[in-house]
Amino acid sequence: MDNVKLSALEELGQRAQLAETELAQLGTAVRNDGLLKMADALVSHQAAILEANQADLATADGLKASFVDRLTLDADRIAAMAEGMRQVAQLDDPLGQVDRMWQNAAGLTIAQERVPLGVIGIIFEARPNVTADAAALCFKSGNAVLLRGGKEAILTNIAISDALRSALFEMGLDENAIQLVQDTSHETAAEMMGLTEYLDVLIPRGGRGLIQRVVREASVPVIETGAGNCHIYVDQAADLKMATDITVNAKVQRPSVCNSAEKLVIHSAVAQTYLPVIAAALRENHVELRGDERARAIVPDMVVATAEDWDEEYNDLIMAVKVVDSEDAAIAHINAHNTKHSEAIITDSYEAGRKFQRRIDAACVYINASTRFTDGFEFGFGAEIGISTQKLHARGPMGLHELTSTKYLLSGDGQIRH
Amino acid sequence: MDNVKLSALEELGQRAQLAETELAQLGTAVRNDGLLKMADALVSHQAAILEANQADLATADGLKASFVDRLTLDADRIAAMAEGMRQVAQLDDPLGQVDRMWQNAAGLTIAQERVPLGVIGIIFEARPNVTADAAALCFKSGNAVLLRGGKEAILTNIAISDALRSALFEMGLDENAIQLVQDTSHETAAEMMGLTEYLDVLIPRGGRGLIQRVVREASVPVIETGAGNCHIYVDQAADLKMATDITVNAKVQRPSVCNSAEKLVIHSAVAQTYLPVIAAALRENHVELRGDERARAIVPDMVVATAEDWDEEYNDLIMAVKVVDSEDAAIAHINAHNTKHSEAIITDSYEAGRKFQRRIDAACVYINASTRFTDGFEFGFGAEIGISTQKLHARGPMGLHELTSTKYLLSGDGQIRH
Repeated sequence: MDNVKLSALEELGQRAQLAETELAQLGTAVRNDGLLKMADALVSHQAAILEANQADLATADGLKASFVDRLTLDADRIAAMAEGMRQVAQLDDPLGQVDRMWQNAAGLTIAQERVPLGVIGIIFEARPNVTADAAALCFKSGNAVLLRGGKEAILTNIAISDALRSALFEMGLDENAIQLVQDTSHETAAEMMGLTEYLDVLIPRGGRGLIQRVVREASVPVIETGAGNCHIYVDQAADLKMATDITVNAKVQRPSVCNSAEKLVIHSAVAQTYLPVIAAALRENHVELRGDERARAIVPDMVVATAEDWDEEYNDLIMAVKVVDSEDAAIAHINAHNTKHSEAIITDSYEAGRKFQRRIDAACVYINASTRFTDGFEFGFGAEIGISTQKLHARGPMGLHELTSTKYLLSGDGQIRH
Repeated sequence: MDNVKLSALEELGQRAQLAETELAQLGTAVRNDGLLKMADALVSHQAAILEANQADLATADGLKASFVDRLTLDADRIAAMAEGMRQVAQLDDPLGQVDRMWQNAAGLTIAQERVPLGVIGIIFEARPNVTADAAALCFKSGNAVLLRGGKEAILTNIAISDALRSALFEMGLDENAIQLVQDTSHETAAEMMGLTEYLDVLIPRGGRGLIQRVVREASVPVIETGAGNCHIYVDQAADLKMATDITVNAKVQRPSVCNSAEKLVIHSAVAQTYLPVIAAALRENHVELRGDERARAIVPDMVVATAEDWDEEYNDLIMAVKVVDSEDAAIAHINAHNTKHSEAIITDSYEAGRKFQRRIDAACVYINASTRFTDGFEFGFGAEIGISTQKLHARGPMGLHELTSTKYLLSGDGQIRH
């Protein structure tokens, strides 16, 4: 083993595992102190980070404005990153918590204790704040992290990780708990997806293309995050004023994110009177409406919704509208087209609400509230690493708890098996 | 979508998803009744199952005796399969259990409820009892299952699945909750590993080669099970009588299984006097001993342990012995070579036991007990689908609870996000 020549990435992996061995044994106070010191380092390294960011931006010609905006840092954004790290320091420590403890028939005491996952790989795109956010959550939960961001932000990411690592080094901790993969080639990303010997889990953060590629290609276990084709279903028993408030909020408040609503499904018993009302309210908020045939029979000047519309995540001020004759039809449509993220029913019927929550297959199923609440902060987790849309390990907003695994500790008095 | 021609396997997947939609909504009583009816059907189909098994055995010429033994059924083994299903019917229903429930700052009630994983794929080798065992656990936990066993047992597996499905059909339930993949080609196994649209999780059950292939090739999320290179560490503060009882039990009681001990690590302070004693006890039980240089200096007639020995899972009456100068050296050796399954320390030192449990990276870490307790039945889970050696989703023995996911149910009064 010792004589095999490791690739550059395997060397990072090996260093991460060594750092993880130390990190997993650090007490809560030391990890929290590390977070505060890293936050201070972000602020004290501000000039270097902004300089690197300017260099990245200088080569960002021709990229979309929204992309450039996500890439751009200023003093306020750096202060916000630092503040985020300080908030993570305030959160409860998930490590050492005992989920269950019991005695088995043989008299063994069995405790299921929370431990780190180990080494976490994060593959992300242009947002340099992910470097600090993900590093903070992984560090707090005792996990070493390998961060691989997009090439457009590479200089910024190097400057941020240098700041974080310098704080750990000054504390006498192993700075390899946080490592940036500086080679942003596709080959290295592909190698990272197969790094089963060193990585315990991979979390892709970014657009659907990136996430689907990681799910398809990785042999390291993946937590799939982010895609959201969320629906609001306005039932025949809905409070229509509430339906308007929630639909406008879910669509308009921040259309670019995964928990915003993309589709409106309306029961035919209320569509004739209600559809013109909600259409006007959405249009007042600059939403483009696309309707199926029945919706366009009521509000004729909608764009025609095609088959593709029902599966599309717009992340934009666009909403497609469908009219159905029953709650069962609404549920069938949603289960056939959703991304298992967040779905809401607006109803005053106890039975309709209960059925919707039981039958809809999604991470979060709402009665009478906006889908925009699917969020680690809104849930009260204090932070989040992403929204899991898979069923394995974690489903819905993932906070510190979801970045841990468990270990069974068994204590006996000489028990043998018969 | 509707016009795309599906492969035979995709058709099974689609039927499984439809069946799962019904199954997830069935109450506890109906699912338990289904299990009892399936158990009865195994017994009433006994003649057909045994005839199919004879046909499989007729083509098993040239296979190892242990393989043929695992493949062979008789009336007693069929009765045991049926009894296993009846026992699963008696277990607590994991579905509908609420893990946590709270109110967030906006006043939403958030309940995290247990739901099925969805459609589970099981890829296994020659043991036809896996067909009934896995079907029972998946059915009880509301999951549809696609079973793909080895070609050597295909006729037996068809007869067993016919029996189970006939019971569901007679109850008026969708028998596609349990489906056998009858094409046992490698191509179909490979297709199954990529069936992300229909399968929520894949669980391989069998030898290391099979499991590693599935981990490497599958894009469907995998739960890795089974490999066990387990150690007993005899500390300087050990009760040596207890150490002998536990080591012999862990090695000898059932050497072919993953929770049996393969390695013995002894502190040098007790090795000189204790190694001859434990060596004699193991040899009395027909165990071949392989020793490192220091162990062979004490008990010279051991086989020389090579570098490969420390990583090997013998599943046989063989044990390798290493002498170390400290607990730290024992922990370092174990963490470098174990399969993250089960490890035990024998000690009367509080400090040594506590350190071992904190530092060893494994699903189950024992003080003063045999590693053979890593088992769903011994844990009190009533049944198990396997022992997870990965950190994601489940770690250690997996019972019904580990075959479920969760869903957040959020109930509000018109909350919108600000």
